[in-house]
Amino acid sequence: MITGKNYVGNELSAKGGITYSTFDPKLNIPTEWNFHEATDEEINTAAEKAKSAFKAYRNTSGIQKADFLIAIAEEIENLGDVLIRVYIQESGLPEGRAKGERGRTMGQLRAFADLLKEGSWVDATIDTAQPERQPLPKTDIRKMLVPKGPIVVFGSSNFPLAFSTAGGDTASALAAGCPVIVKSHPMHAGTGELVASAIIRAVERTGMPDGVFSNLNSSGIEVGQKLVMHPNVKGVGFTGSIRGGTALYQLANERKEPIPVFAEMGSINPVVALPGALGENGGLWAKSYAGSITLGAGQFCTNPGLLLGIKGNELDAFASILGKEIEKIEPGCMLHPNIYSGYEKGKEELSSQSETQIVASIDTEAPPNYGKQRILMVDGSDFMANPKLHQEVFGPFSILVQCEDINELEKVIDQLEGQLTGTILGNEEELQSYGPIAEALRNRVGRLIFNGVPTGVEVCPSMQHGGPFPASTDSRFTSVGTSAILRWVRPVSYQNWPQQALPDALKDDNPLDIMRLVNGRHTTSKI
Amino acid sequence: MITGKNYVGNELSAKGGITYSTFDPKLNIPTEWNFHEATDEEINTAAEKAKSAFKAYRNTSGIQKADFLIAIAEEIENLGDVLIRVYIQESGLPEGRAKGERGRTMGQLRAFADLLKEGSWVDATIDTAQPERQPLPKTDIRKMLVPKGPIVVFGSSNFPLAFSTAGGDTASALAAGCPVIVKSHPMHAGTGELVASAIIRAVERTGMPDGVFSNLNSSGIEVGQKLVMHPNVKGVGFTGSIRGGTALYQLANERKEPIPVFAEMGSINPVVALPGALGENGGLWAKSYAGSITLGAGQFCTNPGLLLGIKGNELDAFASILGKEIEKIEPGCMLHPNIYSGYEKGKEELSSQSETQIVASIDTEAPPNYGKQRILMVDGSDFMANPKLHQEVFGPFSILVQCEDINELEKVIDQLEGQLTGTILGNEEELQSYGPIAEALRNRVGRLIFNGVPTGVEVCPSMQHGGPFPASTDSRFTSVGTSAILRWVRPVSYQNWPQQALPDALKDDNPLDIMRLVNGRHTTSKI
Repeated sequence: MITGKNYVGNELSAKGGITYSTFDPKLNIPTEWNFHEATDEEINTAAEKAKSAFKAYRNTSGIQKADFLIAIAEEIENLGDVLIRVYIQESGLPEGRAKGERGRTMGQLRAFADLLKEGSWVDATIDTAQPERQPLPKTDIRKMLVPKGPIVVFGSSNFPLAFSTAGGDTASALAAGCPVIVKSHPMHAGTGELVASAIIRAVERTGMPDGVFSNLNSSGIEVGQKLVMHPNVKGVGFTGSIRGGTALYQLANERKEPIPVFAEMGSINPVVALPGALGENGGLWAKSYAGSITLGAGQFCTNPGLLLGIKGNELDAFASILGKEIEKIEPGCMLHPNIYSGYEKGKEELSSQSETQIVASIDTEAPPNYGKQRILMVDGSDFMANPKLHQEVFGPFSILVQCEDINELEKVIDQLEGQLTGTILGNEEELQSYGPIAEALRNRVGRLIFNGVPTGVEVCPSMQHGGPFPASTDSRFTSVGTSAILRWVRPVSYQNWPQQALPDALKDDNPLDIMRLVNGRHTTSKI
Repeated sequence: MITGKNYVGNELSAKGGITYSTFDPKLNIPTEWNFHEATDEEINTAAEKAKSAFKAYRNTSGIQKADFLIAIAEEIENLGDVLIRVYIQESGLPEGRAKGERGRTMGQLRAFADLLKEGSWVDATIDTAQPERQPLPKTDIRKMLVPKGPIVVFGSSNFPLAFSTAGGDTASALAAGCPVIVKSHPMHAGTGELVASAIIRAVERTGMPDGVFSNLNSSGIEVGQKLVMHPNVKGVGFTGSIRGGTALYQLANERKEPIPVFAEMGSINPVVALPGALGENGGLWAKSYAGSITLGAGQFCTNPGLLLGIKGNELDAFASILGKEIEKIEPGCMLHPNIYSGYEKGKEELSSQSETQIVASIDTEAPPNYGKQRILMVDGSDFMANPKLHQEVFGPFSILVQCEDINELEKVIDQLEGQLTGTILGNEEELQSYGPIAEALRNRVGRLIFNGVPTGVEVCPSMQHGGPFPASTDSRFTSVGTSAILRWVRPVSYQNWPQQALPDALKDDNPLDIMRLVNGRHTTSKI
């Protein structure tokens, strides 16, 4: 049941009088639920509970935290069809996507549980004493990762499950040993409350401290700002727009004690189509990219918004097939009227730049909130000269940039803003002969893809989802995959610390049986 | 020979007319050298050369980079006695310290060379394809760390060698594959130029690209600010004051593309003296701490500026012996008149707080620039109420805080600002029975020490030198030890990338023979 209340720790709370509704974009009407904006008192109580919970939670064992994460996954599953129905109602996304995303969300929680059970992620590093060393003896030093403290998570609009209440940020922070306060995304606050209720049931079932998780409602920006400024908060995870992410980043840096904000923001995910690939498989790639650009109404952070090629027959043929294929696809319902109007505005703004021409566009009538796809074309030199054309248009939109030659192509890539992904379509010989292209692309992105589409993200240890600014605020970290846990921890060294007082991960006899770096050698052996 | 010029890449350059001198604090007179402030043109040229050098340097193999770092160490050694003489002249520090620090500097360079030769630091992580996976096939993804780009290093006043021109920040950034531009510390610009000349010789000897290293002079803050704001710069390393580090941090965050600043700043390094330790070994600890507080005229970031104990006979006796021991020690020459006057000012400011009383103080005449030690005492409640008393006084100074009981002690620790180190003096039973004390201390520091002094830092994999703000701007990283390399790199994933185009670290046959995480298992095996 959706109550519209906040979870301040384990307690449902609605102290404030201001409420707001979510919206059904398909029916184009508000939903029946009213959500209570969190008050200052509720914000403070959530932050105090989180600080207090941290004292117990930071010493919870890996096995206990794993059981907690698995319990969350189970409780999400136990929500059953009501979760899927509310998800669809609040997002306009189809049932298959809802179920797939629920599966991914539970999969993420279980992936972190596996990481915790295995245990080596704490990066235990041990240098034993050398009392005889000259000119000075060396003392015993041992280092491992420990949690930073309470983390605030901002849910994303486009992943109501996998990157919201119990999504990757929450799962990684809880796995790290950090309490989490979620600022619920106002577009799917009902989905958020259901998932929050599942987390609270898991907290109670596994005996985790009250305050290890809170879920606060807000339709504006003040609640989020107050959370980021709260002295008890030690880190922030955000997925959303460049404007929103940068604002939180600046705010967090102006605190008396600045805290890290990992914001995954804008990306147009350049795709470099080399001539050989287009000559051999241009038709197939055009079809595949028509699908990738319109997947989920284009509402993916990895959506390919920029296609780069070299002028010539191959590129002309590719553009022509791409245009035909994309016009065959039915427009899809977007997440919310605000997302839809933002899309239309961005699309028109870029289309109105005099350097651009339309390759393909759907301009027929469609139901309200349905995003109609468009592909533009522009010359390389014009693209470089006009930064407006580099903006992300969140939706089924892409720009095809025609470069004069390989040198101009390299220049375009060199001057690009940071991106989540960069793709090369080519044959293997081209990848060798166009080495500087791949090299330039690597310098601008977090993930390189060969002969594929950037949409679709694996949750695995080798995934990097994050890139040079503005793709994210810190390219040294990822928000997807198990390495996402590293955003919420810091190393602590123990010098000359007695065996029985050391954490298990650092004890001589390696009771957790984890991989450690001992005197410069990776080993699972005892000392 | 000291020319007073900048190194803009491999070229000596003095385009500006503004010059400044360094200072001999022992003789209390300026040195004979004049240094040319870097001009805007020189700053830009250094940044352009660094950007261009990065294109070659980022693909330099680990072995080649190791040879480069070893060559730097050799060339520093080849500078011979002139380096030691200039170091002493510009710092007032004794010959033993100069030679020790030179040894540590060469040791750091060699430690990073060893890390590069071994090669596993790139954190290669491989998840192979599962084409048969249901419901979707899984593609091959491989991730490793790559360098971010040119790094600006600000040398520290108190380590003219080990944390300046070729110090830990420079060594770690060059090891990572990042070009370095040093903003030379104005107090030891001559030492800096000599070391820079050694680096340039190593660049030429090992065929590294021109621009991989530059050394720019400046006595003010503008050159540093311009470097931090330069779009070619992708990260900053700083060791110095909270004010200086925070200003650079804010500046870097206001860039169009914010960049990470790792600033190692202020720390008063709390030492908790438990009653058992003082009862059993109070006299020995007092003697040891008198030495630690005055070591190097107290000019260490790990200097113990805060002693915490519980009221009682043991603490009284400890204070009395500490006072006597510290008054026996001859004051030492400080690095520069500015450091000396800053010390005297800070000492007097804290001494003038009405809650404090003097435990020990040297007030007799001493030569100019000699820092005269002082120990104050204050009650726990007064310490908590007056944040002025938490300030770092850079020099041979410490405050002894007398807490009423264990609860007040825990409160004091809980409310402390972030610190580089925290020490517990106790017997092993006390460490167990005062568990919450150790736990609270761990939450405020980067390195915990049992029964030792915080001064003296090992350069090894398990070292953490960095802590919660304001000890450093990002507690997730260290500036000492081989993990310092992680500040200058970011992960990149390669998806479905052909074998021959992959970096060696990610190839199936593991030609570098490094430890990798392959499908969740740590192994050095081929795939």
